[in-house]
Amino acid sequence: MANVRPHTLSGFMELLPKQQVLFNRIMNTLQETYELYGFTPLDTPLIEASEVLLAKGGGETEKQIYRFTKGDSDLSLRFDLTVPLAKYVALNYGQLTFPFRRYQIGKVYRGERSQRGRFREFYQADIDIIGDGTLDIANEAEIPSIIYRAFTALGLKRFCICVNNRKLLNGFYAMLGLTEKAGEIMRTVDKLDKIGAEKVQAILTDDLGIAQEKTLEILDFISINGSNQEVLSALEGYRGRDETFDQGLDELGAVVKNLAAFGVPESHFAVDLAIARGLDYYTGTVYETTMLDHPEIGSICSGGRYDNLAEYYTDKQLPGVGISIGLTRLFFVLEDQGYLNENLTTAPADVLILPMTDDLGPAIELATYLRSWRLQAQVYTEQKKFKQKMAYANKLGFQYVAILGEDEIKQGKISLKDMDSGEQLLLTKEEVKSEIFIHTDLKSGEKPIREV
Amino acid sequence: MANVRPHTLSGFMELLPKQQVLFNRIMNTLQETYELYGFTPLDTPLIEASEVLLAKGGGETEKQIYRFTKGDSDLSLRFDLTVPLAKYVALNYGQLTFPFRRYQIGKVYRGERSQRGRFREFYQADIDIIGDGTLDIANEAEIPSIIYRAFTALGLKRFCICVNNRKLLNGFYAMLGLTEKAGEIMRTVDKLDKIGAEKVQAILTDDLGIAQEKTLEILDFISINGSNQEVLSALEGYRGRDETFDQGLDELGAVVKNLAAFGVPESHFAVDLAIARGLDYYTGTVYETTMLDHPEIGSICSGGRYDNLAEYYTDKQLPGVGISIGLTRLFFVLEDQGYLNENLTTAPADVLILPMTDDLGPAIELATYLRSWRLQAQVYTEQKKFKQKMAYANKLGFQYVAILGEDEIKQGKISLKDMDSGEQLLLTKEEVKSEIFIHTDLKSGEKPIREV
Repeated sequence: MANVRPHTLSGFMELLPKQQVLFNRIMNTLQETYELYGFTPLDTPLIEASEVLLAKGGGETEKQIYRFTKGDSDLSLRFDLTVPLAKYVALNYGQLTFPFRRYQIGKVYRGERSQRGRFREFYQADIDIIGDGTLDIANEAEIPSIIYRAFTALGLKRFCICVNNRKLLNGFYAMLGLTEKAGEIMRTVDKLDKIGAEKVQAILTDDLGIAQEKTLEILDFISINGSNQEVLSALEGYRGRDETFDQGLDELGAVVKNLAAFGVPESHFAVDLAIARGLDYYTGTVYETTMLDHPEIGSICSGGRYDNLAEYYTDKQLPGVGISIGLTRLFFVLEDQGYLNENLTTAPADVLILPMTDDLGPAIELATYLRSWRLQAQVYTEQKKFKQKMAYANKLGFQYVAILGEDEIKQGKISLKDMDSGEQLLLTKEEVKSEIFIHTDLKSGEKPIREV
Repeated sequence: MANVRPHTLSGFMELLPKQQVLFNRIMNTLQETYELYGFTPLDTPLIEASEVLLAKGGGETEKQIYRFTKGDSDLSLRFDLTVPLAKYVALNYGQLTFPFRRYQIGKVYRGERSQRGRFREFYQADIDIIGDGTLDIANEAEIPSIIYRAFTALGLKRFCICVNNRKLLNGFYAMLGLTEKAGEIMRTVDKLDKIGAEKVQAILTDDLGIAQEKTLEILDFISINGSNQEVLSALEGYRGRDETFDQGLDELGAVVKNLAAFGVPESHFAVDLAIARGLDYYTGTVYETTMLDHPEIGSICSGGRYDNLAEYYTDKQLPGVGISIGLTRLFFVLEDQGYLNENLTTAPADVLILPMTDDLGPAIELATYLRSWRLQAQVYTEQKKFKQKMAYANKLGFQYVAILGEDEIKQGKISLKDMDSGEQLLLTKEEVKSEIFIHTDLKSGEKPIREV
C-alpha cells in the first residue's frame, strides 16, 4: 500500500519527542520571562497580502520570500515579526494603549540556500515596546535587562549583551564630514569581527574612497575599549563637537547607568562601538548578544531603538525599541555545541500507572486523584507483560511507576517504584502524591541549558 | 510617507490584546489538560512537500489547499494535523515508543469560501494515541474523558460527547445486505440533524435506490434512543446476526462502561447511532461533541478510532485513536454567543509600578523583588502626569498600581492601590507581595468561558 516516501523538507526543523520537550522548555522560559515584565501576547497570521508585507520593498529579503497566488490574491509568508507588528499597530492604533508592550513567538519563513544550521522555517521570539509619539530612554535599558534574565533563566552563563548607539556613530561620522557615507561605513565596520581591521580599512579607503587619516580615526574610534566607565570616559573626549554625538553619548550613558539599576551585572554587558546592526531603521541604542565561548556563532539576540515603526502604513509617529531571538537557530547551536541539558526530565507525565488487573477502575481513580493535584498521570492500558510495561516506562524516562495489582488493591495501597533508585514502596495515594511532588519541585528548577 | 493601507486578509483571525489573552487562556488550558494525561508535545512544519501531504489524494480538501512552488519544489501548507502526524510516525517509527501519545496545537490552512465564522487559517488542538500493531479498546474510552475534563476546565457546562461505533454500523448494513452502499448511507444519515428524516429517506430511496422497507429499518435503527443502558439494550436485540455488528456492540459497551470509570458523568455523554463521521478511515469508536444550547453550531470536537494511520507511507500497521478541536472556530462561536468571560483578568502584568521620582532605582528594585516571586511587574517609565499614568493602568485593566513617590521611598514603603476598590495602603514590599498573591490565586481559578 505504501507508495510515498515520508520525508520532511530540508531546512525545516522537526524534532523527536525528547528534543521537542527541551525546545518547548526554552520557548516557555522566554514566554514566562516576557510576561514577568508586562508584555502582552500577540499572534498574527502567517500569511499576509504581499503588498502589505513588502510595502518597504527591495533588499535581500524579498528574494527569499515565500510568495504565491491563491485565486486572485497575491500572498506572502511573513519573514519576520516586525512587519506584521507594524501593520497591526497601524491597523489597530485607536484600540491600543501606548506604550504598547507585546511579545510574539512564532514561525517565520525565508527561502535561504539550504545549509547546515540554516533554516527556512524558524521561530522568532520578539519583544517590542511601541510609544505614541514619544518613548522614554529608560525602555532602552529595560530591554537588555529582560534578555539578561531570560538567558540566565535558561541556564546560560557566559554571554555578553553589547550595546552601542546609532546617534553616537552618526555624530562621529558627521564630525569627520562623512555623514553621507555613514551608512556604508557602519555596514563595513560591522564586519570587523568577521574580516579583521586590515580588510575593513582596505574597503574604507579603496571602495568608499575615504582618506587614510580618516580611516585611522575611524578604526581608533571603534577600537576604544575597557570597562564601560573607561569607554564612556574616552567618548567624553569627543564631546562638544557635534550635537547628535552628544545626544547619543547622553543616551548611552543613561542606558549604562540604568542597566546596572535593572540588575544586569557589569560582567554581562559592554559598550561595543563596533556594532551598528545592518538595518537602516535603527536610530538610537542597538544591541547584540554573543556567547563568550562561541563568538563565531554571531549574535543570538539583536535589536534596537527605531523612530518610526509603521511609516509605510500610517503617518503617526510610532517610535519603539525591541529585540528578537532566533530561537530555532539558537536551539540548533546549543545542541550542536553540547549545551542542552540531557538530564532534563522529558517523560510525558510525572508518573506511569500500571494496572495489573482487568478492572481499570482503581488505576483510573488514582490517576484522577493525582490530576486533581495537577500532577501528570498516564494510565498504561495495553495488554502486555509486566516486563514490557516496565520497558515502556524506562524508554520514555518516567521517574515513577505506580503498580496496582490485586494485593495492592486489597490493601487500598499502591506500589510506587522510583525508576532511578529502583526502590519500591507500598504507599497510600496521599503518600504517592507527596512523593511525586518532591520530584516535580526538583523538575521545575531544572534548566534546559547546562553550561560546563 | 504612508502609502499602503494596512489590512489583514479576510478569513484570518487577528485579535486585540484582551481577546488574545482569552484565546491563549483557552489554548493553555487545553495544553495543560493534555499534559495531565501524559501526551507529549509535537511541532511539525507548516509546509510539506505536496506529494507527501497529498499522498491520499482527491477529495474536497485538495481544492482548498494552499499549494505553490518555490524554486523546483512543489509545496503545500498543511490542512490538518493528522497527515503530518502520519508522516512523522512513519518517518521516525524506529525512534518512537508505542503507544505514542502526542498532542499538537497548531495552525492549519484551508482556502474555504470566505464567510462569517469560517476561517482559512485556524488552530487545531489534537490528541492521538498510536499503537504499533495493536491498541487496546480502553484508549477509546480515555479520549472522551480527556475532552470532558478539558471543556470542564474551560468553564463549559452544557455539552454532550456523543459516541458511536463504525463496526456496529457496518455490521448493521451487512445484515440488510447493503454493505456496498454502507459508506454512502452513513454519509447521508450523518446529515440527519441538518436536513431531517424525510430528506434522508428521500435520498436513500431515490438517489441510492434502497428499498423502502430497508430505509425504514435504517431510520428506526438510527432513531434508537434513551439512556445509554436503554440504547445498549435495544442494540442487544440485533445480536447474533452479524459478527462485525457483535464486535462493534462489545466495543461500544466497553467504551460506555469505561467512560463512567474515567469519571465522565452520564449527563455528558450519550450513545448516538446517527453519527458516523464523514471520513472513511474511522473503523471503530467515533465521537462528536455538541453544545446542548447550540446544536446548530455542529460538533466542536470530533474524532475516532482508525486502523491504519500511515498506510501511504509505511506497511506497518499503526492503529490509533484521536480527536481534534477546531480552536479558532470554537473561539469565534464562544465570543459570538456571549460565552467568553469578560471579567477575566487580561492586564499584561499583576501590578503596574509607577515611579514618581527621576531615579528609577526603587521602582526597578521592587519590580525585581516581585519577579523573584514569579509575580508579573511592569515599571511605567514614561514622563507623564499622574492622571495619565493612572489612566494607562485603568485602560489595561491592572488590578494593582504600586506608587513610589519621595515620601514612600523615605519610609522604605510602597503605596499599593487596588484599582477595583480604590483602596490605597502603605505597605512594605513583603506586604505588597502577599497582597498581590491573593489576587493571582484568584486569577488562576478564573475560567475563560462563563456559561449563564
